Amino acid sequence: MPRSGAEARRRLQQAALELYRERGFDQTTTAEIAARAGVNERTFFRHFPDKREVLFDGESDLRAALTRAVAEAPHDLPLEILLCAFRKVEGILEGNRPFAEPRLHVIAATPALRERDLAKAASIVEALAEALRQRGVSDRLAGLAAQTGWAAFHQALHAWIDDPSQSLDAHLLQAFDDLRALSATAPSAQAPPGDRPRRQ
Amino acid sequence: MPRSGAEARRRLQQAALELYRERGFDQTTTAEIAARAGVNERTFFRHFPDKREVLFDGESDLRAALTRAVAEAPHDLPLEILLCAFRKVEGILEGNRPFAEPRLHVIAATPALRERDLAKAASIVEALAEALRQRGVSDRLAGLAAQTGWAAFHQALHAWIDDPSQSLDAHLLQAFDDLRALSATAPSAQAPPGDRPRRQ
Repeated sequence: MPRSGAEARRRLQQAALELYRERGFDQTTTAEIAARAGVNERTFFRHFPDKREVLFDGESDLRAALTRAVAEAPHDLPLEILLCAFRKVEGILEGNRPFAEPRLHVIAATPALRERDLAKAASIVEALAEALRQRGVSDRLAGLAAQTGWAAFHQALHAWIDDPSQSLDAHLLQAFDDLRALSATAPSAQAPPGDRPRRQ
Repeated sequence: MPRSGAEARRRLQQAALELYRERGFDQTTTAEIAARAGVNERTFFRHFPDKREVLFDGESDLRAALTRAVAEAPHDLPLEILLCAFRKVEGILEGNRPFAEPRLHVIAATPALRERDLAKAASIVEALAEALRQRGVSDRLAGLAAQTGWAAFHQALHAWIDDPSQSLDAHLLQAFDDLRALSATAPSAQAPPGDRPRRQ
């Protein structure tokens, strides 16, 4: 049996990920995860409230690191601040890559885990928006900046998982370049009135 | 008892919304929703698989209308195409406003409904990205454009619920203007090397 709590926790996460890949999330019980990790089921529930949370352990650390980075970023413009913050957490993500890759595949294949993943992402986006507001960004722009910056970060993360020949940093810079290129061409409110669809 | 299936469906949705507001989602049973709507519980399950779905009835219609509008939009740039598509569905949303406003509040207050809402939004974003790819937008830009456009649309929708003194269309144009303003200032990949955080 693993000695320390941290070691048990790590083994539970690894065991859950393996079992979800082998049998699917729905077909795996917490008792089986505990058995594979060499602990009893009570230990599972000491560490995680349910069998979804076992795959989302790093989210609160990531959120905390990102909001701190937003507060400290030596920039003024919202997307500059966010890019700087995302670059600061690259090390966390790179260190976690061996776990992250199979984890993303399991999540993509499991609706219950996708819902939880989206909820975690929404919570980080909300925290980023709040951190931007704290820096004086207007309420409206803070929400939109956090959403779009997160979309670029998310895209970079997936691109990096698919193509590790480039660094996460390179993918991140590419995604923010894409975002800029896209949005520079966002249509203006001064669109001709004919652009407005007619109501039936 | 309501005669037609469509009428029963509408009454079930209204009853569910009322009960979720009065007692909360977790404290409401499908039997209670059925009773309030004047139908039996079997009828509930003929219309909806669970008590979450009862609040998400319009999503597949919205997704279909949006993807069709993307296919038909007389534009070339991804965000132009998306703005055009969002404007096309304004009528659907405006007609649904009396239901939409309390619905958004119930969803915001209920984690289980928020997760479902996020999953529905993710499914629409994926459909929009696919519709953009069908129009020849590159895989990478399609995903990011769909996310970004959706973020602006979502922001406009919430702003309109909070402030109906302006039309949904005005809020939508404002959100796309915000998007452009944000990204005009997004940092470039040609950031100075000193901007890269040092690794520990």
